Amino acid sequence: MRGAVIHAPGDVRFETLDDPTISRPTDAIIRTVATCVCGSDLWPYRGAEPIGDPHPMGHEYVGIVEEVGSEVDNVTPGQFVVGSFATSDNTCANCRNGWQSNCLHREFMSTCQADYVRIPNAHGTLVATDDHPSGDLVPGLLAVSDVMGTGWYAALAAEVKPGATAVVVGDGAVGLCGVIAAKELGAERIIAMSRHEPRQKLALEFGATDIVTERGDEGIARVKDLTNGIGADSVLECVGTAESMRQALHSTRPGGNVGFVGVPHEVAIDGQELFFSHVGLRGGPAPVRRYLPDLIDRVLSGRIEPGKVFDLTLPLDQVAEGYKAMDERRAIKTLLKP
Amino acid sequence: MRGAVIHAPGDVRFETLDDPTISRPTDAIIRTVATCVCGSDLWPYRGAEPIGDPHPMGHEYVGIVEEVGSEVDNVTPGQFVVGSFATSDNTCANCRNGWQSNCLHREFMSTCQADYVRIPNAHGTLVATDDHPSGDLVPGLLAVSDVMGTGWYAALAAEVKPGATAVVVGDGAVGLCGVIAAKELGAERIIAMSRHEPRQKLALEFGATDIVTERGDEGIARVKDLTNGIGADSVLECVGTAESMRQALHSTRPGGNVGFVGVPHEVAIDGQELFFSHVGLRGGPAPVRRYLPDLIDRVLSGRIEPGKVFDLTLPLDQVAEGYKAMDERRAIKTLLKP
Ligand SMILES: [Zn+2]
Ligand SMILES: [Zn+2]
Repeated sequence: MRGAVIHAPGDVRFETLDDPTISRPTDAIIRTVATCVCGSDLWPYRGAEPIGDPHPMGHEYVGIVEEVGSEVDNVTPGQFVVGSFATSDNTCANCRNGWQSNCLHREFMSTCQADYVRIPNAHGTLVATDDHPSGDLVPGLLAVSDVMGTGWYAALAAEVKPGATAVVVGDGAVGLCGVIAAKELGAERIIAMSRHEPRQKLALEFGATDIVTERGDEGIARVKDLTNGIGADSVLECVGTAESMRQALHSTRPGGNVGFVGVPHEVAIDGQELFFSHVGLRGGPAPVRRYLPDLIDRVLSGRIEPGKVFDLTLPLDQVAEGYKAMDERRAIKTLLKP
Repeated sequence: MRGAVIHAPGDVRFETLDDPTISRPTDAIIRTVATCVCGSDLWPYRGAEPIGDPHPMGHEYVGIVEEVGSEVDNVTPGQFVVGSFATSDNTCANCRNGWQSNCLHREFMSTCQADYVRIPNAHGTLVATDDHPSGDLVPGLLAVSDVMGTGWYAALAAEVKPGATAVVVGDGAVGLCGVIAAKELGAERIIAMSRHEPRQKLALEFGATDIVTERGDEGIARVKDLTNGIGADSVLECVGTAESMRQALHSTRPGGNVGFVGVPHEVAIDGQELFFSHVGLRGGPAPVRRYLPDLIDRVLSGRIEPGKVFDLTLPLDQVAEGYKAMDERRAIKTLLKP
């Protein structure tokens, strides 16, 4: 088969790779129907994270089951399945608590920008749809496997409640899905922080009521202006930098909540500042598996359309261009079709 | 009148001071029935916080209303009142959200170890009891004004739920009140971390089911042993050091919650570590005013006995000995009677 391999910053190649095989009885092999490039893939691509030896890339996927190990009894070959970037047995103590992305047997996916993918913990990770979805629903289901699941978690971690005011920091695909989530959870006012017109438009389409283009202290002041001077009830931090975390914490009202889903890069939180803010803080890799049945339903029923975050679709063999377009901000998110 | 004045580390004196007067129409003057020394008073006493010029001390109080300003209509002279260490108007946006300790007009109390005290924002701060309570209930009501209210908030911030496992880090008066709170909120298992026998005994009396004497990594391992290897649902951090925060965060299960109420001293939280832990974190000065009616009821009905944290009672003029006994850990908490 063929798939993407990163060799160095800016250097992603489409290469011939060994076909994946069942290595444990809980594995499944899927034929990829769609995969994509994640904002977090840009960290190594931009040299902001070490790469080490050349290795495959990709952790988002939907596909058709090709083969299952002897202990996989929830999906069968031929079914269309959606999974999560973090695999889970769905039976351990953390899974039972609803934290499948902290499963005691978790393995993060990392080889999905390829024709075929081995899914560890397939029995606790994959959810099959009743039928093969029509092609127009595939992008939405693909989004559920990561960005939509992550936006959903951000909104829950930020405790978005009906009638609440929510701020979304970050206008990448996750932030935009965070707008969808805040809307679905009943937020009355949704302030999207964005300075890029195509993303602003999509945010408004997804339910944002206000756009704030300012950043830093000006951005914080603008949010306070819109929230009776005290800040928002819920803030979704969807970037992962020290600056975005600061923006999020300072945009939240006393007693409000920040949900943070951008993997923090060199972020330290001052204990005393957090203390006096009364802000609640929760982050982490989203427990997407917990939300899969619900989010798949919302996509299949047409209630949400997170597939719109894909504004560039390429054949998988053009994966290098997919990275480049996102790096240069010509695309919000690239969908890849084998 | 007379009251305590701190001059330097280890140097608290009982001195003649000006009688307080009504300076704003929202003030009240109370005659102190009981006040006390707080664990946080020990920070400057031990030289761990700057003192600056000599100044009065104390932020915990119950008393009899002597005089009220023209805008104070909720209490009248002669009534017995309980307040909070943080005053609040109880009408601003933060107060309406339940965060009275972040009131836009907040003033922290700081002159309560004295015969008389001026209470700013008296209308939104003081709650009167129906009758003058009997003397044996006074310590419990005094505890409500700070340590019991703070322990209560710690348990709520840690999201203690019926059936939960809770850990309390810190065996000072706040931590011990945190045990009471966890019990009242329905925790099934309450692990108190303490290596001091009198405090262990009180923790068990208040509802702790397990005592962990180990600290640091050993303490964390011990908590994990008691919690299926994953950590506790809720952890109350009642100290405020980097070590105690680390202990708390590492004793919490993925997706669990830490409520932190010890004012953090040189505590920085690593964003990436918090992220991958999935732990929710909320702290701050407790919004005691929100809990006053409920906690006063629980004390008056005898349902909780937080007054037991006072294991030393002295006349106010021996306030210096009150500090010394706590500093030397001869007393958990000193009650002072004018
Ligand atoms: Zn698991
Ligand atoms: Zn207020």
